[in-house]
Amino acid sequence: MIKKVLVICSGGMDSITLAHMISSNPDMELKGLVCFDYGQRHSKEILYAKTCAEKLDVSFTLVPIPNLGELLKSSLTFDGQIPKGSYNQENMTSTVVPNRNAIMLSIAFGIGSSMNVDMIAIAVHGGDHFIYPDCRPEFLKTFDEMQQLALQGLSSPRLYAPYKNMSKSEIAVIAKQLDLDIVETWSCYEGGESHCGLCGTCVERKQAVNDSGVKDSTAYLN
Amino acid sequence: MIKKVLVICSGGMDSITLAHMISSNPDMELKGLVCFDYGQRHSKEILYAKTCAEKLDVSFTLVPIPNLGELLKSSLTFDGQIPKGSYNQENMTSTVVPNRNAIMLSIAFGIGSSMNVDMIAIAVHGGDHFIYPDCRPEFLKTFDEMQQLALQGLSSPRLYAPYKNMSKSEIAVIAKQLDLDIVETWSCYEGGESHCGLCGTCVERKQAVNDSGVKDSTAYLN
Repeated sequence: MIKKVLVICSGGMDSITLAHMISSNPDMELKGLVCFDYGQRHSKEILYAKTCAEKLDVSFTLVPIPNLGELLKSSLTFDGQIPKGSYNQENMTSTVVPNRNAIMLSIAFGIGSSMNVDMIAIAVHGGDHFIYPDCRPEFLKTFDEMQQLALQGLSSPRLYAPYKNMSKSEIAVIAKQLDLDIVETWSCYEGGESHCGLCGTCVERKQAVNDSGVKDSTAYLN
Repeated sequence: MIKKVLVICSGGMDSITLAHMISSNPDMELKGLVCFDYGQRHSKEILYAKTCAEKLDVSFTLVPIPNLGELLKSSLTFDGQIPKGSYNQENMTSTVVPNRNAIMLSIAFGIGSSMNVDMIAIAVHGGDHFIYPDCRPEFLKTFDEMQQLALQGLSSPRLYAPYKNMSKSEIAVIAKQLDLDIVETWSCYEGGESHCGLCGTCVERKQAVNDSGVKDSTAYLN
């Protein structure tokens, strides 16, 4: 039985790699990408997600929650300065958007139930565990159990998070194996013309791609 | 320690009674109401929720998710005719909005974490168990466990659902004890000038209030 899959896609390297990986898996059928706009600082990453859906010829669903960013405390959505430098705990705790994954997943499960898909895929990876509690395997497991109860008797997808114990470097290697050029993905928190090269997620991207041995053709300002 | 509480309020009889009950509880402090607009057929109930927040002098947070209704299959948000007559399983299954409570709760937990409240309150009641899987005690318990994992290390509220094993009649009795006139609440799915008196939720409201022995001053068209 081929599994129908809906992917949560931010336009970043991890979720675009996941969409390509599922699209090229003969046991799976990529049905669509779902993308959230909760009032992030910029919407450049949304364009990258939409372009990915067009390239893979699947549906693209944008879910705007216009005032959610204001309501959740984080430097990603507030006026606070985005931390520069390495992607470590001290710098990055201020980029935690409380409950972001639970919110995105619960909406994706509702949409996926209506679409009759078998799986909801999310690209959380091991490197995020130490900062973001809602990226950890025990959260993902309990979330999946909760969803089976919430959708009992209805079409009820399962959670698929194949990168949950991988590093970002390993994801870069998968992208390379899939012939996916990572310039088709957007990571920078700043949302300028090019990647800034200085914010936590630019630094993390550079380092992961460098560690993987894959050539990085991203144009960084710094 | 007085518990700070954020209430999910639709403007209906159950959630408005819950807000009044918490507001009058000396061990609790009602901090605000959060209300969702996911493209319901009408927004009359939102006005009733807002009026309740003004009366109780607490914050009112409206979270619009404009296209969610289109994306989730249900006669409440789609063009299908709303079932008339009794609030039974056959009639009402078509009013299930898949994952609605998981979606509203996860957003409320994110907002509640940012507001530093101790509890998120929801007015699901026992009469809904047989139709809506996301009103059942086992769902609520697992949802609460999931949230403790999702918000580990952050401000992490607990779920409070005091009506989960009560009937709607028992809620009508609580409203009476609180001197809350149920005309301050809106139930009808149709959203006309007055309650239609014919849709499933009007029939349920009439019957619950009648069973409770409380006088029903609602003006029903039928």
